[in-house]
Amino acid sequence: MSEQHIVSSFDRDLEGIQAAVMKMGGIVEVALSEAATALKTQDVELAEKVRLGDRLVDELDQSVKTDAASLLALRSPTAGDLRTVLSVMEISSHLERCGDYAKNISKRTIAMAGSVEIDETLTALGRMSKFVEGMIKDALDAYIHRDAAKAEEIIERDMEADQIYNTLFRSLLTHMMEDHRNIAVGMHLHFIAKNIERVGDHATGIAEQTIYLVTGEMPEDDRPKHDKTTMAFHESDD
Amino acid sequence: MSEQHIVSSFDRDLEGIQAAVMKMGGIVEVALSEAATALKTQDVELAEKVRLGDRLVDELDQSVKTDAASLLALRSPTAGDLRTVLSVMEISSHLERCGDYAKNISKRTIAMAGSVEIDETLTALGRMSKFVEGMIKDALDAYIHRDAAKAEEIIERDMEADQIYNTLFRSLLTHMMEDHRNIAVGMHLHFIAKNIERVGDHATGIAEQTIYLVTGEMPEDDRPKHDKTTMAFHESDD
Repeated sequence: MSEQHIVSSFDRDLEGIQAAVMKMGGIVEVALSEAATALKTQDVELAEKVRLGDRLVDELDQSVKTDAASLLALRSPTAGDLRTVLSVMEISSHLERCGDYAKNISKRTIAMAGSVEIDETLTALGRMSKFVEGMIKDALDAYIHRDAAKAEEIIERDMEADQIYNTLFRSLLTHMMEDHRNIAVGMHLHFIAKNIERVGDHATGIAEQTIYLVTGEMPEDDRPKHDKTTMAFHESDD
Repeated sequence: MSEQHIVSSFDRDLEGIQAAVMKMGGIVEVALSEAATALKTQDVELAEKVRLGDRLVDELDQSVKTDAASLLALRSPTAGDLRTVLSVMEISSHLERCGDYAKNISKRTIAMAGSVEIDETLTALGRMSKFVEGMIKDALDAYIHRDAAKAEEIIERDMEADQIYNTLFRSLLTHMMEDHRNIAVGMHLHFIAKNIERVGDHATGIAEQTIYLVTGEMPEDDRPKHDKTTMAFHESDD
């Protein structure tokens, strides 16, 4: 009876922490989406909002970590429960870094405001951003439902994100070669593209945590890496 | 007596994990240094060695995390001991990401081999790399000696790393503007510079863990951020 009681209060605490992580996930999704909108419409005010909003994500991450540490200290979970607490902490870190990327994109949007004339790239960045937002959303869903198959799917999708990035990199390079006035803006847009691509990597990281929770093992990192900008470099330079 | 026994075997296990993290630190320092040498001398063979060597760092990180999780599960440490285990896990993550940066630098070195003619930038990158390597080394020393004052110093030094990066960014931009044949290489060098600058951020992250361990609180993130490439953008674009 007492054992039962202890178990359920652990579950209740853990649920509270997981709820906080999900809330963080929602906030990060909105931040990424607003960062993309601000970039596309060169809306400085919205970018500023995203930039300042990241503080809340950082606070949530800190509070998840603190709560998880208290849970470890008070309840001393073992086996599956321990794994769950550790995975929640990892997911919180992934989301916190996605929040950083939304902030970075916004900072560069503010710096570039009014100077971007490469519409085609902005449109491509918007598409790419939507793609990785979807990955984050689905990675969190897969986690909540402990759905390893769906998590595997997300890892597959990251290759597509990498390919979108590669195409964008080549197109940016072309714009910069064609007109040197595009260089400074191009460098910022390239960083933004890389930031968005990194969000996809974090979605993969979250998906891996789900697989770890369900199977007890981290997936092998044997998937081919599709960031081919090293090749793009040669292609465009020869 | 039995209590005593349990305490010392916790300490012994923890020491083992800390030793593994220090070993990781040593390997990462060498990787960063070799990555910088390979870049400077455009030595593809050395770059390839660094690229492949990152697997070992990833394995060490995984094993630190697994051992720390077992320690949490078996010994249920509380208060200061719990904090120590959590900080070791954080430091391991920081080092693992520094290893990734060394690998990324090497991959770009391999891609660019023979094409880099901006000697001045290579020299500056070499200097910057030495600077952040020193930060990592000192951050680990500060951790081992639980030296919060030294850790504070490292956080200060990160501003200098950011300034070195800003100078380099402006110089790269100039080279790319002057001759469009420098654009593709310039974009890679810019990424490398950003990777090196990020190593400094991770040294700061490690230093923050030491402060957290000694004082029980994370330092406030109120230091001014000195990545001024957004300003550099305006300066060079107006």
